[in-house]
Amino acid sequence: MSTQITAEDLDAVALGGAFLGTGGGGDPYIGKLMAKAALLEHGPVTLIDAAELPEDALCVPVFMMGAPTVMVEKLPAGTEVLAALAQIKQIMGRKATALVCAEAGGLNSTIPFAVAAVTGLPLLNGDGMGRAFPELQMCSFTMHGVKATPLVLADDKGNAASFTTIDNLWTERLARAATVEMGGAALVAAYPMTGAQAQASLLHGTMTLILEIGRTIQEERRAMRHPGEALRALTGGHKLMRARVADIRRETTGGFVRGTATLRGIDEDAGRSFTVDFQNEFLVARDDTGRVLTTTPDLICALDGDAGLPVTTESLRYGLTLELTGIPADPQWRTEAGLTLAGPGYFGYDHAFAPVEALLSTS
Amino acid sequence: MSTQITAEDLDAVALGGAFLGTGGGGDPYIGKLMAKAALLEHGPVTLIDAAELPEDALCVPVFMMGAPTVMVEKLPAGTEVLAALAQIKQIMGRKATALVCAEAGGLNSTIPFAVAAVTGLPLLNGDGMGRAFPELQMCSFTMHGVKATPLVLADDKGNAASFTTIDNLWTERLARAATVEMGGAALVAAYPMTGAQAQASLLHGTMTLILEIGRTIQEERRAMRHPGEALRALTGGHKLMRARVADIRRETTGGFVRGTATLRGIDEDAGRSFTVDFQNEFLVARDDTGRVLTTTPDLICALDGDAGLPVTTESLRYGLTLELTGIPADPQWRTEAGLTLAGPGYFGYDHAFAPVEALLSTS
Repeated sequence: MSTQITAEDLDAVALGGAFLGTGGGGDPYIGKLMAKAALLEHGPVTLIDAAELPEDALCVPVFMMGAPTVMVEKLPAGTEVLAALAQIKQIMGRKATALVCAEAGGLNSTIPFAVAAVTGLPLLNGDGMGRAFPELQMCSFTMHGVKATPLVLADDKGNAASFTTIDNLWTERLARAATVEMGGAALVAAYPMTGAQAQASLLHGTMTLILEIGRTIQEERRAMRHPGEALRALTGGHKLMRARVADIRRETTGGFVRGTATLRGIDEDAGRSFTVDFQNEFLVARDDTGRVLTTTPDLICALDGDAGLPVTTESLRYGLTLELTGIPADPQWRTEAGLTLAGPGYFGYDHAFAPVEALLSTS
Repeated sequence: MSTQITAEDLDAVALGGAFLGTGGGGDPYIGKLMAKAALLEHGPVTLIDAAELPEDALCVPVFMMGAPTVMVEKLPAGTEVLAALAQIKQIMGRKATALVCAEAGGLNSTIPFAVAAVTGLPLLNGDGMGRAFPELQMCSFTMHGVKATPLVLADDKGNAASFTTIDNLWTERLARAATVEMGGAALVAAYPMTGAQAQASLLHGTMTLILEIGRTIQEERRAMRHPGEALRALTGGHKLMRARVADIRRETTGGFVRGTATLRGIDEDAGRSFTVDFQNEFLVARDDTGRVLTTTPDLICALDGDAGLPVTTESLRYGLTLELTGIPADPQWRTEAGLTLAGPGYFGYDHAFAPVEALLSTS
């Protein structure tokens, strides 16, 4: 089933991506501007299912890599990702058949639309995470044995770096170091894969889910309702808390934004307090007894408590009210392979993974 | 004129390279071992002048990049530079005609011999620095408009990175970041150039000069003489001091070893004291009044005060006696273009460049 996505749909894409981006994946406003301009100039983008592609098609994910705080201040020039794609074409000896979204996020689910519009290529209805994650090996492509290389990284100045590595973790390390040197953010084409590999490894339907989430946010806001409840119904999510940011510790190191927000409960949660850790994306939410409420790889998605718009980790500030929702990750993330890639242990936590629905039922 | 270099010559190459390497360019012992094994297995290496090559020949410099202290502990696997060369061949669409030495140094003037032996390619009699410098854009190739890219960096684990950049300083920045991530040292093939470019940009004769310096050290030591005087006669050098290391401050940061050695004069220099700054290589020598005795890009070459063997910055230690010689750099380094690349200002010093022969005559 193919769907036409027009410039008008991009507000919803940016909103939905930002919600599913669990605080990361880039600023929805910048992403929307970039992609809207491209679709207005070049026309709509065709969203297709991986099953519609020939087995030997060449599918190429495109995305931005770096610390979200940097992305807000250092806008892409627009040509970087085309330069990266051109190098992938040279290395692979042929042109991409379709583009792929690597992760959900305000920026990283809109960039593929911009590139699809400019190149005239279709975009697959799926992604590699079903959310955003801070490191590039954390994706279903890795779980299905797709190599991240050849990977090409391009900056706004005209520099590019490409890598061939022994595994996707090494690709992450080398590409991250180059990203830091390029100023903290760079655009990437990577994980070139066949149509058969895309069919096997993609988390299918992410792009239409993003669109549906975005439209739900728009509709609920138009109806003067906070969209939290409707989004939980749509995604199988659980309300974690309504709270106000009391303290925020954040540092940009090694190409990531890492930190912890301390939250004081409001409304029905008044009197309680919470912490939420993040590395670009939200990783772990806890209450004041230290009990884990939701942990990576399950999703922690934030909406502004009043306006109902998605909140990214870089926009967290003292006094902001939040409504946090815990959402079960795609079942692949809850397998041993998924937890090895992006479970609590990988991020240095002692706690074992437990599903959000189990954590919230044991109170 | 072509010369055959045999395994037996490599002791002299390693010694001569280490002397001209101004404290950097890698450990002569490791370099000698690597290259000797290759020449014993594959036979001698042919040293040729760039003038003997066709104008459209493809000449490729090969070298190790990283902090010398790391190179001592992290030996190359031997296959890295061949992997890098293979990628250069793929990018350039043809095989190298000849190899090039990028810089003088214990390791970096022996590695090209090892690679030449294994590949059967001739090695050009010249290099890009006439000494060692810490950063890869600091070479005569840059002064003659040769691009460092395509540059391929390979590590001992099987990872490789390649770059296309807007200038050689950006290549240095990106390659340095990847080198740090690869563990602090990596092998490189870069600056692919035509025979005509090699003829125009090479500092000719460096390899035979290195051999001559190494043989002089061997002969003087056999005759129970300290080789300092004979080396100064050979290189037009000036004795700076004989001294003992009293203090050494050294840190490995950003892929470099940076530091300062404080020296107390001995013998004819008893009662004086000195400091020598380094970033991989020796940069500036001063006496206790702060007067500059020799400054980059002129060479500061160190011999053990007793044994007469070259001393690298990573082997500096408390109590070691040194004899330091200041040598005029190649005239190209003393031009505005040369000083912009590697003069005192580039390294953050306030003093203007003055030739060692002028500095020592104004006392």
